[in-house]
Amino acid sequence: MSYLDQITSPTLLLDEKICRNNLKNMAAKAAKNGMKLMPHFKTAQSHQIGNWAKDYGITEVTASSLKMAEYLCDQGWENIHIAFPFNPLEAKKLNELAVKQSFSVQLINTDTTQKLVEVLTNDVGFFIEIDAGYGRTGVEVSDFGLIEAILKIAKQSSHLHFRGFYLHPGHTYYADIPKIYEQTRQALAMLKSKYQSEYPDLVTRTGDTPGCSVTDDFGDIDEMGPGNFVFYDLMQSTLGSCAKSDIAVAMAVPVVDIKKDRNEILIHGGGVHFAKDVLPHEDGGKNFGEVVYLHDQGWSIPNDGSHLKSISQEHGIIKASDDLISKVKVGDLLGILPIHSCMTADAMGAYLTLDGKWVDHAEGV
Amino acid sequence: MSYLDQITSPTLLLDEKICRNNLKNMAAKAAKNGMKLMPHFKTAQSHQIGNWAKDYGITEVTASSLKMAEYLCDQGWENIHIAFPFNPLEAKKLNELAVKQSFSVQLINTDTTQKLVEVLTNDVGFFIEIDAGYGRTGVEVSDFGLIEAILKIAKQSSHLHFRGFYLHPGHTYYADIPKIYEQTRQALAMLKSKYQSEYPDLVTRTGDTPGCSVTDDFGDIDEMGPGNFVFYDLMQSTLGSCAKSDIAVAMAVPVVDIKKDRNEILIHGGGVHFAKDVLPHEDGGKNFGEVVYLHDQGWSIPNDGSHLKSISQEHGIIKASDDLISKVKVGDLLGILPIHSCMTADAMGAYLTLDGKWVDHAEGV
Repeated sequence: MSYLDQITSPTLLLDEKICRNNLKNMAAKAAKNGMKLMPHFKTAQSHQIGNWAKDYGITEVTASSLKMAEYLCDQGWENIHIAFPFNPLEAKKLNELAVKQSFSVQLINTDTTQKLVEVLTNDVGFFIEIDAGYGRTGVEVSDFGLIEAILKIAKQSSHLHFRGFYLHPGHTYYADIPKIYEQTRQALAMLKSKYQSEYPDLVTRTGDTPGCSVTDDFGDIDEMGPGNFVFYDLMQSTLGSCAKSDIAVAMAVPVVDIKKDRNEILIHGGGVHFAKDVLPHEDGGKNFGEVVYLHDQGWSIPNDGSHLKSISQEHGIIKASDDLISKVKVGDLLGILPIHSCMTADAMGAYLTLDGKWVDHAEGV
Repeated sequence: MSYLDQITSPTLLLDEKICRNNLKNMAAKAAKNGMKLMPHFKTAQSHQIGNWAKDYGITEVTASSLKMAEYLCDQGWENIHIAFPFNPLEAKKLNELAVKQSFSVQLINTDTTQKLVEVLTNDVGFFIEIDAGYGRTGVEVSDFGLIEAILKIAKQSSHLHFRGFYLHPGHTYYADIPKIYEQTRQALAMLKSKYQSEYPDLVTRTGDTPGCSVTDDFGDIDEMGPGNFVFYDLMQSTLGSCAKSDIAVAMAVPVVDIKKDRNEILIHGGGVHFAKDVLPHEDGGKNFGEVVYLHDQGWSIPNDGSHLKSISQEHGIIKASDDLISKVKVGDLLGILPIHSCMTADAMGAYLTLDGKWVDHAEGV
């Protein structure tokens, strides 16, 4: 029986072979550069995919919330890093979980550092997050006053251990990657050299998928924590991080109506499935995902321009090529490569592999 | 103990009083117009909120997928209508569920009608969905050939019962509501008059929240199925469907960092919580939600321009008024009125009431 026979409603397919290949390639790249890879599991959010990652020497992971980190506990990870400015309301919960699991967190202000000093009775590591320059979050790279204030407060606790500096250049999604990485290398090298005498074991870490995919020179950066590369998506293929054939997930969607005269196909598949990330389409409209053809071994990519041109909560409308419109029937299943796989996986909450088995994804947010 | 004391991470708050008021007002409006209200539960997706609705004489509900309809089964609803072009891959499942629960579906083509004729061994009602003119879905209002082909095929089954015509003028979100409702009334009246002699019990139904909120003249339309009005949101207040004080849900979010010099507040709260619906802000930027102040009895709306100006997967950045920036502290909770409550509720999967109790929301999609 094909995995396709069990699908009657929108279902997120996962090609294990492609996913493992992505993990293997990034692990090889990290190794080649003498770096440690701790993938950001905000993308996969999965025990099973975590087990695949272990096959490529990966021993630590990254999460974006304490709730997600909790889901990843008890899976044998040597450390779980929470790559988000720590939320002081969760200090007690972190302390409880830290009895059994090694964690590191990110700090960017003295208030939260003070809170952890007061609450922690179990060991927790911390990174100081450095603002990558696009203003989302972090301590400015030259704000040594704030860096030293955080370090000074942290020293009051025997349970809060400085691990190093984290810089997430998320603006590689919009700008010149080589230039951004030049700045990233310089900023982290400067900080390491400034604080290494006092903290000889400190490490530096970076993490975005576009940068980690296309950069070859990481300088003396020690660690990388990209997330999206585990699946990739159309946003990444557009940025040049991957080929479309590297995308490990596709949504299987039922065809519920066809308008041959308009080359349009109505599918069950909308914002609650794909989320609403969008790319501009070359026809001047929008692109919420691209059509692939499903078969028993996975999918093939026609690259014929058929794409999801609009979505509402549950509806999606495909603008179809002449070839697709001539073949498609009501009740068929089509595949859609997503624009943003992290958000799509989060919306769906489970994966179906090509051998018809379900793979877990953390529930809730 | 205040409900606020149990919140440490992004949590969707539900003000029961506002929600009940919205249900009561729409039920009164339907009654005044001699119409039946069967609210679209794609917004609430909840047993508990269904029970509140029953207090206002509501006996039927609407769903947007079979999965959602299944969640609403066994709750005493006289009928559950699935307001989506029926997906023929789910015909067997529909037939199984129809043993115990009355359903109606929407048909827009002969293929799916034929499939139901072949599969159904239990009674199911159906509406023919009419294209409201904005091209998302439905039979064109003048395509009597297709309408009659569907009716003819349906007659082959003793289990498939024609109920009437459904027209969802979803373009009221973008265009002139009075004009659209004039067209809606005329289209449905024409269809009723044309087919009433053969189907004397046929009804007509419409359904969008903006139209049902602002229109007073529904002509002889028999039924309405709006959804969003149960909670409303900033999109609806912008359209004039409601006041901001009618919005029944707000996201409680922890403050994790403050940049006083930039009037910016970093919160834990991003795309996985709010979804990514957005409105233009009057400052030329984006508006992903507006700040409200939480207190033990709910929230107050400062209307001082403080809003969520950007989000990523888990991060949100608030552009804060001088008043807010002068008061806020790391570790505080703020409230955010959502842009699109249906998507936000779907992303969160649960509600916390102001008396600290959890209200259910269907899981998965």
